Amino acid sequence: MLGRRQRVFARGSVRATSPHLTSTISGLRPSVPFLGPEAIERARGGVFRSRIGANENPFGPSPMAMEAMRATMRESWMYGDPENDDLRLALAEYHGIEPANVLVGEGIDALLGYSVRLLVEPNAAVVSSAGAYPTVDYHIQGYGGRLIRVPYAEDAVDIGALIAAAEDHDAVMIYLANPDNPMGSWYERPFIDAMIRQLPERCTLLLDEAYSEFAPEGVIPDLDSDDPRVLRFRTFSKAYSLAGLRVGYAIGEASLIAAFDLIRNHFGVNRLAQAAAIAALEDSDHLTEVVEDVTFARERIAEIATRNGLRPLPSATNFVTIDCGADGEFARAVLRELEHRDVFVRMPGVAPLDRCIRITAGLPAELDYLQEMLPKALLAAKERLADRV
Amino acid sequence: MLGRRQRVFARGSVRATSPHLTSTISGLRPSVPFLGPEAIERARGGVFRSRIGANENPFGPSPMAMEAMRATMRESWMYGDPENDDLRLALAEYHGIEPANVLVGEGIDALLGYSVRLLVEPNAAVVSSAGAYPTVDYHIQGYGGRLIRVPYAEDAVDIGALIAAAEDHDAVMIYLANPDNPMGSWYERPFIDAMIRQLPERCTLLLDEAYSEFAPEGVIPDLDSDDPRVLRFRTFSKAYSLAGLRVGYAIGEASLIAAFDLIRNHFGVNRLAQAAAIAALEDSDHLTEVVEDVTFARERIAEIATRNGLRPLPSATNFVTIDCGADGEFARAVLRELEHRDVFVRMPGVAPLDRCIRITAGLPAELDYLQEMLPKALLAAKERLADRV
Repeated sequence: MLGRRQRVFARGSVRATSPHLTSTISGLRPSVPFLGPEAIERARGGVFRSRIGANENPFGPSPMAMEAMRATMRESWMYGDPENDDLRLALAEYHGIEPANVLVGEGIDALLGYSVRLLVEPNAAVVSSAGAYPTVDYHIQGYGGRLIRVPYAEDAVDIGALIAAAEDHDAVMIYLANPDNPMGSWYERPFIDAMIRQLPERCTLLLDEAYSEFAPEGVIPDLDSDDPRVLRFRTFSKAYSLAGLRVGYAIGEASLIAAFDLIRNHFGVNRLAQAAAIAALEDSDHLTEVVEDVTFARERIAEIATRNGLRPLPSATNFVTIDCGADGEFARAVLRELEHRDVFVRMPGVAPLDRCIRITAGLPAELDYLQEMLPKALLAAKERLADRV
Repeated sequence: MLGRRQRVFARGSVRATSPHLTSTISGLRPSVPFLGPEAIERARGGVFRSRIGANENPFGPSPMAMEAMRATMRESWMYGDPENDDLRLALAEYHGIEPANVLVGEGIDALLGYSVRLLVEPNAAVVSSAGAYPTVDYHIQGYGGRLIRVPYAEDAVDIGALIAAAEDHDAVMIYLANPDNPMGSWYERPFIDAMIRQLPERCTLLLDEAYSEFAPEGVIPDLDSDDPRVLRFRTFSKAYSLAGLRVGYAIGEASLIAAFDLIRNHFGVNRLAQAAAIAALEDSDHLTEVVEDVTFARERIAEIATRNGLRPLPSATNFVTIDCGADGEFARAVLRELEHRDVFVRMPGVAPLDRCIRITAGLPAELDYLQEMLPKALLAAKERLADRV
């Protein structure tokens, strides 16, 4: 990402040799999982016209969630309920499971961090896919875990290879996003079920279902919330369009869920956010509408890509990953040229996925503008490419 | 706290022998730092009439902060800026320091956790006061640190004993809240300066100044933000009356502040909260008014205590700690009798501090009700006490 390193160092460089920091921390290389669009805007000195890079959902939250925020604003002087009880009960009812199987936290990012802290000893192996969600790698390395990265196979996570790597390395954890980010691909239920059956002993599957509401019927397995081998993660940031509020949740076996209480930030979830999430969960009509809007936008992005000679990959998420038909250098050039033209998109960070760019399902006006700018960005990127020898 | 254990176990008990959990986690005893008032209300089956136990600030946030929340609500679909840049710059300007010396996080609780994670190796000693902020103990133990607890001296933190214990145990960290919670006492600047000078080598002082805005002039030292031995913590939860939003910040030497970027939840701070905090910071008139309201309420609580034959301790915070004149059992009985009468207060958890109860500066109506209920609660507690042999 543009300017990432510069930015970190601009804030004061980490004294890797400081006597104060723990050995695990001293061993970490400076990195941030994602540079926010605001940081890029500050670096380039202007706001984006199409903010279609962070897989946010601009179709907006339920009016009921907005009303809940408005009504709860005046309670901001109170801490939120540290047990998130009302929301936890609402989620349990929604999924038809017990409250003891649900944990609410300040976004999936925080919950993934807690999970690694609970389950990963320093030097223990954790298996993920090379190019998968960077925040997971960040947490694994941050807790001193040994990250084993398995290549994608044909632009999808390679489940068999994940299992094999977990066996080879005696891994305590596998991370899998289904549907996948950044590629948008997905596995039908039987594959996930088979994977769970094949999990090595003492190996926990972190199953990130952030994009599950966008997936076709039948993709997301029924919840066997009492299986101690699996922790599942959901969020209000994607389909519910509440990324700014920081609410995610984990579903898992009750004693494992209870273990989070040993370490989590008990007062971590915003009071307004708890109320808004409950209201959002009740408004299933709005969810249906938003998912339709997203599906339509996804088709439009695929069409724009195809019309420009690029290949859109199938997606069960709120983004479309587009094969730019060349190498990582070319895709990075396309991304940069889009950025120059006020279009914010992101791309996978690891080859061979990095021949793609990833475009979030945006509002019609944002996609109109993308449609106008993509041919120009492609042309400019090709000219750049021609200049290299 | 009433029902704490029951509640934790009701959610599924932790399998201490689980092969999945790390050795550090398996060694932890189930505990939560604080039971929220909502949990107590659920257990007793009714809401409190005076919610004056959690050191929240019912005088309410600045109208400018409320307006900022209202204006930002429609942006909830976007993630908050992970660098919290606007707020960080505003805080730097407010304190007359560099942005590189400021880190914004999801409440002081989260920042304390990150600090322990950065600085405390498993089995390293950390010194705190017996009965001080339980969330600090929770984090230290949660990361496998060895907690050394130093008794209070005459209801104030014993600075000399903290330093001595740090030397004796080769501690890597000392925690000090100034002004202090739960006792409300405080140290003038020269004492803190002297303490910093005496810090053993390789020992970092975590200086929690959550209540600093309530302290008399001259108590809080000027900010020497480049001193690598000290990390200071501030919050929008107390004087700014925004506990529900989860915004705190740390001030420290730039390279230590930068180290938080290696581990923190980069997208952890709510987008509305960032906007509201900036607005709150600008409204110094509101802050002045609120601090006056709190001072008045504090005097009123002291008066109510005195009129009931109890001894209010001096306070530089938004609460008054009241010596109930007997032992912990009696104070706990008073607390319980207040609870039965719909008054929520808290108390220190460790002897000899636990002869006290701690009452938050509440609204006039809440204190009217306290004034009515305290004599009845005291009488009932004395009757209980008479029954014990």
